[in-house]
Amino acid sequence: MVSNHYRRGFKMIDSPTPGSPTFVLAPDSFKESMTAHEVCQAMKEGLREAFPGARFLLVPMADGGEGTMRSLVDARGGSVYEASASDPLGRSIVAHFGLFDDGRTAVIEMASASGLERLDPSERDPRVTTTRGTGDLLLAALNEGATHIIIAIGGSATNDGGAGFAQALGARLLDADGHDLPPGGAALAQLARIDVSGLDPRLASVSIQVACDVDNPLCGVEGASAVYGPQKGADASTVVELDAALAHYAEIVHRDLGRDVAAIPGAGAAGGLGAGLLAFTGARLRRGVQIVIDETGLAEAIAQADLVLTGEGRVDEQTRRGKTPFGVAAVARAAGKPVIAIAGCVGEGADLLTGDVFDALFPIIGRVGTLEQVLADGPANVRRTCRNLGHALRLSSAFH
Amino acid sequence: MVSNHYRRGFKMIDSPTPGSPTFVLAPDSFKESMTAHEVCQAMKEGLREAFPGARFLLVPMADGGEGTMRSLVDARGGSVYEASASDPLGRSIVAHFGLFDDGRTAVIEMASASGLERLDPSERDPRVTTTRGTGDLLLAALNEGATHIIIAIGGSATNDGGAGFAQALGARLLDADGHDLPPGGAALAQLARIDVSGLDPRLASVSIQVACDVDNPLCGVEGASAVYGPQKGADASTVVELDAALAHYAEIVHRDLGRDVAAIPGAGAAGGLGAGLLAFTGARLRRGVQIVIDETGLAEAIAQADLVLTGEGRVDEQTRRGKTPFGVAAVARAAGKPVIAIAGCVGEGADLLTGDVFDALFPIIGRVGTLEQVLADGPANVRRTCRNLGHALRLSSAFH
Repeated sequence: MVSNHYRRGFKMIDSPTPGSPTFVLAPDSFKESMTAHEVCQAMKEGLREAFPGARFLLVPMADGGEGTMRSLVDARGGSVYEASASDPLGRSIVAHFGLFDDGRTAVIEMASASGLERLDPSERDPRVTTTRGTGDLLLAALNEGATHIIIAIGGSATNDGGAGFAQALGARLLDADGHDLPPGGAALAQLARIDVSGLDPRLASVSIQVACDVDNPLCGVEGASAVYGPQKGADASTVVELDAALAHYAEIVHRDLGRDVAAIPGAGAAGGLGAGLLAFTGARLRRGVQIVIDETGLAEAIAQADLVLTGEGRVDEQTRRGKTPFGVAAVARAAGKPVIAIAGCVGEGADLLTGDVFDALFPIIGRVGTLEQVLADGPANVRRTCRNLGHALRLSSAFH
Repeated sequence: MVSNHYRRGFKMIDSPTPGSPTFVLAPDSFKESMTAHEVCQAMKEGLREAFPGARFLLVPMADGGEGTMRSLVDARGGSVYEASASDPLGRSIVAHFGLFDDGRTAVIEMASASGLERLDPSERDPRVTTTRGTGDLLLAALNEGATHIIIAIGGSATNDGGAGFAQALGARLLDADGHDLPPGGAALAQLARIDVSGLDPRLASVSIQVACDVDNPLCGVEGASAVYGPQKGADASTVVELDAALAHYAEIVHRDLGRDVAAIPGAGAAGGLGAGLLAFTGARLRRGVQIVIDETGLAEAIAQADLVLTGEGRVDEQTRRGKTPFGVAAVARAAGKPVIAIAGCVGEGADLLTGDVFDALFPIIGRVGTLEQVLADGPANVRRTCRNLGHALRLSSAFH
């Protein structure tokens, strides 16, 4: 009797035939087309036609970017929860977070509350946008009893150094008159002192992992304001203003909290939320795909695999920089297992990955079409690709 | 010492390593992108990266349609010749035919002289267009000493029952006053008798194979005029006129030449050139891909293969109807050899071919793009696909 759920929760579908191969299906989502779990399902449906008796371990993956919450919840059999939160401009919205591991672990995408996607382009203004909503989500997760928190911090609309996040959790950021600072990165220039006496006490006992794939410090030419400010709506003079405000903020944090976070790689992620997490919580910044690899138990699954299949909407020269297929391939390589990738788009530089990162790489597009058609055809294309790949793998041993 | 050319002439490239696999590369052309030989080369370059020691037998294929002359010349190491010929409206043009087998075999595409491609759309007029140019090409081939003739009859602009073709070869088609008929299908209504005393005597001693994939009779609702007339410029009343003229022509052929060709399947091909070839020569109508399979010695190559690779610009539900990949797959199946197809476009119904016709089928497009980009990327896409396919085939025997 084989358990249908492994410890880490990845699902084994159907009844395998003894002696048939085991496939680990560990793709990222195909953006705007399929969630990672949907890709897993389509992979399985395709391969099963060539290997009806095979065992399939479905491990929907992510790299800390968009879709990370969904993939972890799907991989671990968790649930998505709603929570009331502030959007980047302080308006009340309904945002989402995930819980799994019997509610012990929460996964939060900051973009759900504090992301650029929450604003019209005309509303982008990093002088006033706040990370308060991300703090609201963390509070909601704590209220559900989560003790292990994963925060994916991509896609932010903010440049407030995590000030709003800290305020939501009970910290007070005060000006010289003892008034709480208003929301936004520009107000940090008025910061006189920080009072953490009201900080939620549960923060002391939870573990927080932050999925962060950038190494930017908080300030300076590689800092949050200079590198990411413009895409959030900052012009050149605003960049200078915000950079100075974050530098001042870091000084007060250092003085009042005893933590010198400004130069830590990743402090400048998400408009400085990286720095805020380091300053106000015991957060640990890690590569997103590594967190997902650990949380999904990917290595345990791959230990049982005859072949690992991964993939992403796009595979190209950026794939080596912490993208999911690269992370999955590394785990497979370490275990001595073959790994094949599929992609909606095989971009520049992808050819260099075959033989080095992947044993093989296949695009899934079947014909010339518009992007809309190709996105809509995603599941059928994945099924076809994996079905034909499966049949090719069945061919005679003349090729060894 | 292995000969670099087999009897049938397909080329073996490079020095194989003993024990390495042998690949037979037998694609059609990818229309508007690559000749079949160019596809072979790209396939070989890709596979060779996964199998450096492999043996490659290049057999550029065709199915009797566009590209047949080029593929046979490439497959057999022949040459392309120019010849002066009449276009469908009687204007003098330079057309082409191929010679191989030390000049003993000629391959003629009627479209080179008598095709729709020779006319502006405004010039299309099947009442007057003539197959004379195809006869001119046959004469040129005879003058070069060819004794075995292959004629591919797709793409015609004509509806003259092969009358112009016969006239070029010396037959006389006379009206009641003993005058030669003018060119075109409409004039056949005036045919009173046929005089073949001046027919080129070499026709008696050459063999002619006609690549013909349609079964239409000469006349009637399934006949040349009704089915193919409209695309050549005939309106409804012209169709009726031409159909009656061809029926009259068939009666005179029967009476004067003793051959009743009107009902023979394929007599209505190419505006009745099928009937004309049957009436005035000893031609044998055959499926185009079967002729190419025989002439290239494909079965001999496949007998040595570990894997057969085929492909075409488009693979879809039409592929079973005599397209090259289907014909190649049939030869591979008969020899018990695996066969994988690649395609520029995997169209409707293609999924049904995997497992039945092909062991596997892979599209080559790597990303969303315009048709122009995809056509230009053809060689790179074939190389990438075959390289990755080769690497996938190398994977462990866990899949058997």
